[in-house]
Amino acid sequence: MTIKLHCFGESGHSYKAALALELSGLDWEPVKIDFFGGEGRTAQFREGLNVMGEAPVMIDGAVKLTQSGVIQDYISEKSGKFGGCDAAERREILRWILWDNHKLSSMAGVTRFLMNFLPEDKQPKEVIAFNQGRLAGTYAVLDAHLAGRDWIVGDGITNADLTCCGYLYYPEPFGFDRREFPNIDAWLTRLSDTPGWKAPYDLMPGSPADRA
Amino acid sequence: MTIKLHCFGESGHSYKAALALELSGLDWEPVKIDFFGGEGRTAQFREGLNVMGEAPVMIDGAVKLTQSGVIQDYISEKSGKFGGCDAAERREILRWILWDNHKLSSMAGVTRFLMNFLPEDKQPKEVIAFNQGRLAGTYAVLDAHLAGRDWIVGDGITNADLTCCGYLYYPEPFGFDRREFPNIDAWLTRLSDTPGWKAPYDLMPGSPADRA
Repeated sequence: MTIKLHCFGESGHSYKAALALELSGLDWEPVKIDFFGGEGRTAQFREGLNVMGEAPVMIDGAVKLTQSGVIQDYISEKSGKFGGCDAAERREILRWILWDNHKLSSMAGVTRFLMNFLPEDKQPKEVIAFNQGRLAGTYAVLDAHLAGRDWIVGDGITNADLTCCGYLYYPEPFGFDRREFPNIDAWLTRLSDTPGWKAPYDLMPGSPADRA
Repeated sequence: MTIKLHCFGESGHSYKAALALELSGLDWEPVKIDFFGGEGRTAQFREGLNVMGEAPVMIDGAVKLTQSGVIQDYISEKSGKFGGCDAAERREILRWILWDNHKLSSMAGVTRFLMNFLPEDKQPKEVIAFNQGRLAGTYAVLDAHLAGRDWIVGDGITNADLTCCGYLYYPEPFGFDRREFPNIDAWLTRLSDTPGWKAPYDLMPGSPADRA
């Protein structure tokens, strides 16, 4: 049975799940959510797919899961990949997934949305500046952790890498310049050089070009 | 061996771990982090305890863990409590932990900090209003989920409850009024009526009173 991932290209949270599916070798296909048409706010979406109103949603037969970190956990169980090799690695991976949800992808996603998907005169400048200030500290934490390491946890790609990169390959500006963080820069290159890697708009349907 | 939780009373993220420890029945004690004195920013803290510069940090013999959700996972493994009864419940609990980190405690924590622990003339009003707008939608999601339920997942207290309540018992105002959300209100009462429950400033050292 083909796993279906309800997602859209602009969503870095969806990208985390889509990239994990793609690199896992599991059979999957994306189903586009018309997020910019308001689909996430409809009663049909909230009641049928996700009360949280968020992407992604994964359907695998009778199993329906939301939250990219939960979907990654399921992919790891099913494929045997990216979940770490023991309890200590599993917890270290979860640590970075939680940190990413709290400090990195959450802030980066909102800031990118405000700067690129709202009209210029609706952009809350003080909020954007505040978020960018917090994100600067966040990037520095990841960059410091990656000093002397190839991957965030252990000796290979894990869900820690596949969550933290969620918004870092997008072309739209939100204040992140990977050249300022050499360890992050090298890690992103390492990941994108991995066979099977694809950029967000090559992996999922929907992109800003659709609305141009 | 007594588990040590490095924490401080004002930290709702610490409270999630402290409350899980207290209700689990495990032997534990808090160790105060002088967060407002800048301890989280010191090299000693970052290198010795947590590169992320955050509370809480749990030490149990040779095991050092950070991120409240990871500590809760460890407490569940050690005590057999709050972790759900099967894989589906475990994933549903993780779903709410991730959502809380992304949308609820993260936003509530920052907004409460800005409104209560910064001088009036340093408070970024536009950021506070923006965060409160996002939080209104977040509370509504939790309130809708709790309709007809006693607990967030399954038939008893789990880590889903112990994470989402992180900032919701604090007395300092940040725009949350539990009376506006009857299902959240009833759930918070249900949890605080549980034998062994304690409020944040009764469970951990440090409170705004220390700096008054």
